[in-house]
Amino acid sequence: MKKKLKELAEWVEGTVVGDGEFEISGVASIEEACPGEITFIGNPKYLPKLGETRASAVIVSKEVTQSDKPLLCVANPYLAFAKILILFSEKPYHPKGIDSNAWISPTATLGKDLTIYPFAYVGDRCSIGDRVTLYPGVSIGEDSTIGENSILYSNVSIYPGTTIGKRVILHSGVVVGSDGFGYVKEGKRNVKIPQIGKVEIGDEVEIGANTTVDRATFGKTIIQKGVKIDNLVQVAHNVLIGEESILCAQVGISGSTKIGENVTLAGQVGVVDHTEIGDNVMVGAQAGVTHKLPANQGYVGSPAMPHREFLKVNAVFSRLPEMRKTLIEMEKRLKKMEEALSSKVKEK
Amino acid sequence: MKKKLKELAEWVEGTVVGDGEFEISGVASIEEACPGEITFIGNPKYLPKLGETRASAVIVSKEVTQSDKPLLCVANPYLAFAKILILFSEKPYHPKGIDSNAWISPTATLGKDLTIYPFAYVGDRCSIGDRVTLYPGVSIGEDSTIGENSILYSNVSIYPGTTIGKRVILHSGVVVGSDGFGYVKEGKRNVKIPQIGKVEIGDEVEIGANTTVDRATFGKTIIQKGVKIDNLVQVAHNVLIGEESILCAQVGISGSTKIGENVTLAGQVGVVDHTEIGDNVMVGAQAGVTHKLPANQGYVGSPAMPHREFLKVNAVFSRLPEMRKTLIEMEKRLKKMEEALSSKVKEK
Amino acid sequence: MKKKLKELAEWVEGTVVGDGEFEISGVASIEEACPGEITFIGNPKYLPKLGETRASAVIVSKEVTQSDKPLLCVANPYLAFAKILILFSEKPYHPKGIDSNAWISPTATLGKDLTIYPFAYVGDRCSIGDRVTLYPGVSIGEDSTIGENSILYSNVSIYPGTTIGKRVILHSGVVVGSDGFGYVKEGKRNVKIPQIGKVEIGDEVEIGANTTVDRATFGKTIIQKGVKIDNLVQVAHNVLIGEESILCAQVGISGSTKIGENVTLAGQVGVVDHTEIGDNVMVGAQAGVTHKLPANQGYVGSPAMPHREFLKVNAVFSRLPEMRKTLIEMEKRLKKMEEALSSKVKEK
Repeated sequence: MKKKLKELAEWVEGTVVGDGEFEISGVASIEEACPGEITFIGNPKYLPKLGETRASAVIVSKEVTQSDKPLLCVANPYLAFAKILILFSEKPYHPKGIDSNAWISPTATLGKDLTIYPFAYVGDRCSIGDRVTLYPGVSIGEDSTIGENSILYSNVSIYPGTTIGKRVILHSGVVVGSDGFGYVKEGKRNVKIPQIGKVEIGDEVEIGANTTVDRATFGKTIIQKGVKIDNLVQVAHNVLIGEESILCAQVGISGSTKIGENVTLAGQVGVVDHTEIGDNVMVGAQAGVTHKLPANQGYVGSPAMPHREFLKVNAVFSRLPEMRKTLIEMEKRLKKMEEALSSKVKEK
Repeated sequence: MKKKLKELAEWVEGTVVGDGEFEISGVASIEEACPGEITFIGNPKYLPKLGETRASAVIVSKEVTQSDKPLLCVANPYLAFAKILILFSEKPYHPKGIDSNAWISPTATLGKDLTIYPFAYVGDRCSIGDRVTLYPGVSIGEDSTIGENSILYSNVSIYPGTTIGKRVILHSGVVVGSDGFGYVKEGKRNVKIPQIGKVEIGDEVEIGANTTVDRATFGKTIIQKGVKIDNLVQVAHNVLIGEESILCAQVGISGSTKIGENVTLAGQVGVVDHTEIGDNVMVGAQAGVTHKLPANQGYVGSPAMPHREFLKVNAVFSRLPEMRKTLIEMEKRLKKMEEALSSKVKEK
Repeated sequence: MKKKLKELAEWVEGTVVGDGEFEISGVASIEEACPGEITFIGNPKYLPKLGETRASAVIVSKEVTQSDKPLLCVANPYLAFAKILILFSEKPYHPKGIDSNAWISPTATLGKDLTIYPFAYVGDRCSIGDRVTLYPGVSIGEDSTIGENSILYSNVSIYPGTTIGKRVILHSGVVVGSDGFGYVKEGKRNVKIPQIGKVEIGDEVEIGANTTVDRATFGKTIIQKGVKIDNLVQVAHNVLIGEESILCAQVGISGSTKIGENVTLAGQVGVVDHTEIGDNVMVGAQAGVTHKLPANQGYVGSPAMPHREFLKVNAVFSRLPEMRKTLIEMEKRLKKMEEALSSKVKEK
């Protein structure tokens, strides 16, 4: 596939500087791009690389107005790059049908144009939407619903009664609907609390490899529309994750916690149970969230504190040995003066 | 199923306040309960909610003696709630038999009343107890034993020679018996130490989704009776976890470490190798256990310290910038005084 | 199998003290060894145990020259032990062939002497080397290559276009080639950046259970020769891990980060994106690497700092409450003196 630069400009609502008739054959990173391809410079500090790349055209921000190379100038170069990459890389969907080595319950309701690979399992009374793809080893428990155009990669496990929206992507090894972790002690013995709730996953959610989402004790664990979750994340029972939030790898959310909309949790963040994180909050890597975090702010540290405050504290942290030394030395000087003063008093 | 309130009281050894003949049809949380259902109030501070819930009866502690609603008064409301929920939610086991699309070795020993789903694999010389359930994609390596009434959810992987007790629950994606992580350097090259030990899992153990338990180098990795492990936990080679201990999500236990009985490790705790945690210890979330922890105490922090001590240290931690400011200021004042004193001496 | 002690000495380039004709039947730990077996003492402080073990011979360092028991003296006892254990435990490979319940694409290229278990799936145009073992539930996406003598344990998922070297071991539940985690915001909406790169895994790599390795956005995620990765580790898109490096359990490496050769990252370490770790670096458990780490040094803490520095800081950390007390007290003393001095001035 080839696209003229001016066609790409229309696609991403940008303007061309230079030859708009030039034909672009693909997209690549600034280091790897070959002649014929387009690349992008998101951060102005990399603009000097414009001269080095072998790409034939570059997506840049609107401030850039001239260059030896054809430019595609846009408000958000990274977004334009993503959209052009989608244009070049997305292949049309061709259904492969249902392999005879898959096991589909006769009571399941199946949409049109499915792709179901060998060794996929679809339980009783499931509903599978149009154009769904189930890779080998996917197991879908009874009474579950998978919305249209969703893709479940190999060895995904869905427990019974789960609802999954449209255009959802579940990567290999994802588990949805496993029992919440709830016990009560009878003496030393752990008595299991039955987990009779469910999981509901909204449209356009993407969940990374080997991530786990537990079913609710009662009611539902809910992951709302557009949420993106990375690999090896734990989402416990009765958690609610608001629309378009982002959870990076190895994050852990404890039971009954509510995450707002458009939140970003960086890698390895842990959040305690029964708390709340407000909308648009950003939490730094490895932070430990131990209490409610108000909206629209950044937090870091374990226990988590506002980013600004943490920077101050942390700056002092590495100076602790020096501070202790000063403290000990000052105490000596103080003592010396106290003695001097006291001897003067005696002199009188 | 319906049960009279007085029948439930007998079941959990409680007493009824109000109409014991009232028929209860189910159990739910205090917010979601509908008329006909019973709910519970564990924490006395929520007693004011008694008036708000739509539940027809409420499990409370023995101190509560009157209410507009029928009450079920017990020593431990949360435990009674769990037991009543079990009563209402547990379905009798109906074996589904062995699906013709499962692969069972002819040398395996099979118990009665099994449920084996399509694409489950049982290796040579395995022993599968009565009423075991193997979901799709379960793989059991040769010479393994699965005790009666155990449930292995979809895509569980059991390596050869593993012993699993009775009434064990392994959630989807659990791996038991993978090689311990042991290498020795020959120059820069990593030489693998063969892992010829095994794994033994006791009765009533439950292990969460995608958790991994490594086999021992020699001897056994042991998870004793009643242990409950959450999702995405790592249990390394030669670890011993004592009876009824609880490991929350994303905990990591390094090789040859011994965890006592009735221990609780909160989420994302890490424990170094070759150490010990005493009985009844509780370790707070994200703590790093770097040395032996004596029994019957709470610990937090990384490196972990007794809870009380940590609270003191942490209280000061956030005041570090203020402390540093005071220190610098005091040094100025001190210097000024020293100069004043020294000039006095000169005056003389 | 039995080997004379002098034969073992030849195998590991050591010398025998005592009866070299003695026949050894196996290898075990110092506590568990039985008569006829050999064990090892790596750390000289355990030499007193020489008298206690039931083993018939002991591998020790060259400094040890006499004992009641036959000794095998070597430069590196732990390495010699590993090599002798390999000698005794490695079984010759007997191919089991391709089970009729596996699904192999007619367009795949298959080597000789394969072992492919039921419910393994090999996609179109894959190349499977000689003597490869694929356990039940392994799924290999199209256009992938698996080098000779590699072992993929049950329920491993390989995405399309992946290259895996020779003598590689992938433990159960490993996922290789899932999409990198890349989105760009369009307002609040997360727009997915297509991940069109690949993954390349070198010879002799071993990857632990349920670990995930994402494909590159462009180009390749690369794990070089001899790298050993433990369970539940996250390797993000475009990461490069240098030869013979070791990543312990639950480590997380963010996108585009380069790890040098012979690096060791202890358990639960997190590394931010777009940074570098130099050759031969060791990073302590739970550390958070937030910036470039120069080669040949040890680091700990979050944010990570040189080990030496951390020890100093951490020693002061636990004394913070005491320091604060001293500071408050000193300020009182200072004030008192200031008042004393000022009253003297007035006296004049």
